[in-house]
Amino acid sequence: MNHEKVAIVGASGYSGEELVRLLGRHPGVELVALTSRQLAGQTVGTVFPRFAGLPFAGLAFIASEVGAIVASGARFVFLALPHGVAAEFAQPLVAAGLRVIDLSADFRIKDPAVYEEFYGAPLPAPELAASSVYGLPEIYRERIRGAQLIASPGCYPTSVIVPLHPLLKKRLLKPASIVINSLSGVSGAGRNAKTELLYVECNESVRAYSVPKHRHLAEIEQELSAAAGERVTVTFLPHLIPVNRGIFTTITAAPAEGVTGAEIGAALTEAYGGEAFVRLLGETGTPDTKNVTHTNFVDVAWRSDPRTGRIVLLSAEDNLVKGASGQAVQSLNVMCGWPETTALL
Amino acid sequence: MNHEKVAIVGASGYSGEELVRLLGRHPGVELVALTSRQLAGQTVGTVFPRFAGLPFAGLAFIASEVGAIVASGARFVFLALPHGVAAEFAQPLVAAGLRVIDLSADFRIKDPAVYEEFYGAPLPAPELAASSVYGLPEIYRERIRGAQLIASPGCYPTSVIVPLHPLLKKRLLKPASIVINSLSGVSGAGRNAKTELLYVECNESVRAYSVPKHRHLAEIEQELSAAAGERVTVTFLPHLIPVNRGIFTTITAAPAEGVTGAEIGAALTEAYGGEAFVRLLGETGTPDTKNVTHTNFVDVAWRSDPRTGRIVLLSAEDNLVKGASGQAVQSLNVMCGWPETTALL
Amino acid sequence: MNHEKVAIVGASGYSGEELVRLLGRHPGVELVALTSRQLAGQTVGTVFPRFAGLPFAGLAFIASEVGAIVASGARFVFLALPHGVAAEFAQPLVAAGLRVIDLSADFRIKDPAVYEEFYGAPLPAPELAASSVYGLPEIYRERIRGAQLIASPGCYPTSVIVPLHPLLKKRLLKPASIVINSLSGVSGAGRNAKTELLYVECNESVRAYSVPKHRHLAEIEQELSAAAGERVTVTFLPHLIPVNRGIFTTITAAPAEGVTGAEIGAALTEAYGGEAFVRLLGETGTPDTKNVTHTNFVDVAWRSDPRTGRIVLLSAEDNLVKGASGQAVQSLNVMCGWPETTALL
Amino acid sequence: MNHEKVAIVGASGYSGEELVRLLGRHPGVELVALTSRQLAGQTVGTVFPRFAGLPFAGLAFIASEVGAIVASGARFVFLALPHGVAAEFAQPLVAAGLRVIDLSADFRIKDPAVYEEFYGAPLPAPELAASSVYGLPEIYRERIRGAQLIASPGCYPTSVIVPLHPLLKKRLLKPASIVINSLSGVSGAGRNAKTELLYVECNESVRAYSVPKHRHLAEIEQELSAAAGERVTVTFLPHLIPVNRGIFTTITAAPAEGVTGAEIGAALTEAYGGEAFVRLLGETGTPDTKNVTHTNFVDVAWRSDPRTGRIVLLSAEDNLVKGASGQAVQSLNVMCGWPETTALL
Repeated sequence: MNHEKVAIVGASGYSGEELVRLLGRHPGVELVALTSRQLAGQTVGTVFPRFAGLPFAGLAFIASEVGAIVASGARFVFLALPHGVAAEFAQPLVAAGLRVIDLSADFRIKDPAVYEEFYGAPLPAPELAASSVYGLPEIYRERIRGAQLIASPGCYPTSVIVPLHPLLKKRLLKPASIVINSLSGVSGAGRNAKTELLYVECNESVRAYSVPKHRHLAEIEQELSAAAGERVTVTFLPHLIPVNRGIFTTITAAPAEGVTGAEIGAALTEAYGGEAFVRLLGETGTPDTKNVTHTNFVDVAWRSDPRTGRIVLLSAEDNLVKGASGQAVQSLNVMCGWPETTALL
Repeated sequence: MNHEKVAIVGASGYSGEELVRLLGRHPGVELVALTSRQLAGQTVGTVFPRFAGLPFAGLAFIASEVGAIVASGARFVFLALPHGVAAEFAQPLVAAGLRVIDLSADFRIKDPAVYEEFYGAPLPAPELAASSVYGLPEIYRERIRGAQLIASPGCYPTSVIVPLHPLLKKRLLKPASIVINSLSGVSGAGRNAKTELLYVECNESVRAYSVPKHRHLAEIEQELSAAAGERVTVTFLPHLIPVNRGIFTTITAAPAEGVTGAEIGAALTEAYGGEAFVRLLGETGTPDTKNVTHTNFVDVAWRSDPRTGRIVLLSAEDNLVKGASGQAVQSLNVMCGWPETTALL
Repeated sequence: MNHEKVAIVGASGYSGEELVRLLGRHPGVELVALTSRQLAGQTVGTVFPRFAGLPFAGLAFIASEVGAIVASGARFVFLALPHGVAAEFAQPLVAAGLRVIDLSADFRIKDPAVYEEFYGAPLPAPELAASSVYGLPEIYRERIRGAQLIASPGCYPTSVIVPLHPLLKKRLLKPASIVINSLSGVSGAGRNAKTELLYVECNESVRAYSVPKHRHLAEIEQELSAAAGERVTVTFLPHLIPVNRGIFTTITAAPAEGVTGAEIGAALTEAYGGEAFVRLLGETGTPDTKNVTHTNFVDVAWRSDPRTGRIVLLSAEDNLVKGASGQAVQSLNVMCGWPETTALL
Repeated sequence: MNHEKVAIVGASGYSGEELVRLLGRHPGVELVALTSRQLAGQTVGTVFPRFAGLPFAGLAFIASEVGAIVASGARFVFLALPHGVAAEFAQPLVAAGLRVIDLSADFRIKDPAVYEEFYGAPLPAPELAASSVYGLPEIYRERIRGAQLIASPGCYPTSVIVPLHPLLKKRLLKPASIVINSLSGVSGAGRNAKTELLYVECNESVRAYSVPKHRHLAEIEQELSAAAGERVTVTFLPHLIPVNRGIFTTITAAPAEGVTGAEIGAALTEAYGGEAFVRLLGETGTPDTKNVTHTNFVDVAWRSDPRTGRIVLLSAEDNLVKGASGQAVQSLNVMCGWPETTALL
């Protein structure tokens, strides 16, 4: 396996920590720079006590500066930064010829108007966004291979797009009928010291939020529309539940005229039967977040309901792995020509 | 306040315990018999250490026998028994002239064919079921007042029927469009020593179950059909989440032609503005199970989504209180002519 | 029951919320003022959505000003304020003739040197501290009755002092042998938006903290010394565990020469057999926080270990009720000559 | 790295599952037999849905029979069986020349009288127990290397013996002064469908249990006595807390005459400074179970308390990894001459 020099920018949050965990053990990766505004000078083992004693524990954070990142010799850079900030780094890094995998929302949305509608600010770098590749390897593998800039998908969108994409592409569902309910663990909200994220406020609590217009809806609809070949508008209802990690998504939709449950299953099997990270649980299995946490798997099951005529799709993933950092590493594996499961099984 | 003699049959489970808690403090209630097959001879304070030291802690369980219950002088009997068993007690107790509030499913379903379809056994006592009153005071208050037998609603159905009933009654929604996702705490599964209910199996886990045909669907559709004046078939998708108590329900539906979000809000306000236990949180508030646990409230909010044209209804309740024992006590209050909030605020 | 006008100052935190819950239903209490710097102008039902729909939900917060509190006509004032701030209110309120029940640490410590050692600041009002009464009714009931200023105990100290006090008073234990391990739910740390209190940081985590010199040690040793009639120095080791509420305390100690386990049990029974809020579980029962949460009980059990000769004491309480607000209300009941269990069972 | 054929007997519980996870990825291990009475015929991926899609997911369970295990060609056998049952397998397997790593208590206790006192049954195979090696590599590494039968330590004992062993060996502590409080996650109780282990019974609950004579005390005292060179009797107080995994242990002890805190730290550093799996956090760091779950690390910190003269030792580990299966694999690595961290970092 060839080796590549890799940098992580902004590694202080939950997805940054997960990137360090995954890349720190990756046999093809040499971590040459870890940056953080607040943590510069500290080592991985100090900042993340969980990693003390591991081979990469002695790596020291440096300040988040483009020059230093370029000087590190990194050929690949992961950005684990807030949206808006990511673009400030991506532009000069791409210009300097580095290949960038961005975990923020800055390049996921192609249409500036949609971005502005959902994020309340102009799309930071429209041309770069236009040339970026949405980093869902199960769908865009070929384009990821040669991409200069990957817009790695959001956690909710991954859990939604994976089950729906092949069905919409084959026109097996009526797009306007789609209703998505998602349940996310609290790490999805990041390591932010907000009152509503305190233990006591989240434990023994369940609540919907950002109803009916969560930011991830922009990304979901863009990709579902691409699959369907027509503009798709859906209902997406996220909920916060008291687990650290995990997203469970339940989707209902009406099948297209004459489409049977068996065809749904066949289309999912055709799309994902050969995929390493999509586990199809069929018409009787049930995803459970506890089976996917700390893994890069997304588990998918389906039911057809003869009483209502609806199809039900169920998926589960770890929001920080397949929903964020694991998927980003999966893209790296694709970009480098390594086995896609490297460091991820 | 007049006093009534009351018995609880089968008080060893979670909803039985909750009945004891509520009735033990009820200023109008004299608990004259507490029965349990397994616990006969023991006191409330021993069986439920939480209740030791409370005024009713010394009450002793007796064996679950109809004769003993009648002999206790009870005029009202709560049945907290498994379905099938409840009917065996309800029949002779009703025949003896006692008024019965049953928390099981035995009398909720009026149509024997529907019962058999969902419960896999014949409806135990069809005539009694036909004459029973569904114990949702917000909807059936007048009939509850004089009822001999109350079929107290299930936990999920309460969280679903409360928001939907007035809207279907006024034909503000398209019934066929209704999709219900519900999230329940683990106490909803009862105090049953099953592997899948162990702490380690439920903690850090979320999963759907009984998709697409949970037993409570029978009850939900019966009551929604009654409201709509037509047969209503809906999608109902329950999920198990790691909290002790609480149900959060998220419903999407298409409004009937020309119906606005304001009309939805107005109908809910008209129906529940004067209700003590339905808290309307409007178009911006968000229910959260932590605000309703250990209370008899059901919190309801709504949104209209101009992008999809759908209405979103959100509700939260405690599955053991408004979803079971609190609601049963609320029915007792109605039956006795006491203020409906007695012992429940 | 006579009625008294009562004010709560600083009701925005967890113990303030619990005071509102308890006093809002108290049949002898008229809440005439609720104050909060941040929440002035808002109602109880808005600030605490859990309380919406309750009879006291409409009460409005006013600004935290001494003049306004006095003007409210309150004869009793609860202070739920940070230490340091509490004394600023207590002094003028006491001077104005009001009776004050303070939940902070400002008056618990009588010795200015000890206070300064543990709190890193001078004791705010030494004379007032000297004249205050430590609000543990099981021990200081008679003095509480006529007190002008109550220093209501801390959560950990209550769980420690209750089991140890009668044993030290009767010289049944060797004071120097005492080792205390306590486990507290996260609400003990208050509603503070700190990273280490986030859900993800506390869930699936256990950790000791403030070892070996937590602030509550000052209070524990003061009261144990008073009981023993000699200076007592103990080991106190607090831990944070992932529950919302509850403190579990495990104490080991060597019995004094010749003292038997039976004498330990007899002394606890003598001290607490007639107490409404101390439940003695004996030599075989085991306290469990789930049996005391949301109650004012403290459950106590004991064991003698013939192998080591040690005595083990186990206690459990709700840190926000018997460990804070419930106990404060218990003091109010004593001060007003009301049944001590009023609003607390 | 040479390869060895390995069998796991009784892989259906939590520690069996963890063994599969660790050995399934071990580069030196070929899993040739997985046995289970109940699961024979099923595959790993079916029994443990978490492992579906992993390279070892297709392994099929066979019945638990000695003949079949021998026939599999396994040279090393892990026993993850209830105590009593383990010895029935160990005897013939050892006789057949296989090397056995037993995770039960059957061979941990050398003294038949002690075993019988704590387990209420005769020591199953006293000669084998006498010849077995206690599988704590940090202490018995040299003997483990050539051992035929490893008695792998219990979860609590590991967390206790690691910090205390070097201190007792150097006579830095007064053995009679030792008091141990341990907090364990619920997986420590196994995958047993008991009411007291249900989610609702453990969540929002903390309780001590088996006070003062838990079975692991036998093992703890045996090893501490061996270290001290004298009979050591200690107080050990286990508690159940609502986490899936993790043990936190807090030990207090009086230092031997004239011993300083610095000497304690020095002795721990001398003993473990070169150990891969013992992370010393010093006099200011604090172990936290969330930093060790899913790892083979045990984190250790210490404090000296000048007020009481006591030493406080704090440790944290994952009860299923360093406290069970990880430690067993660590022994395998030692026995096979592989790097001790193989498959464990």
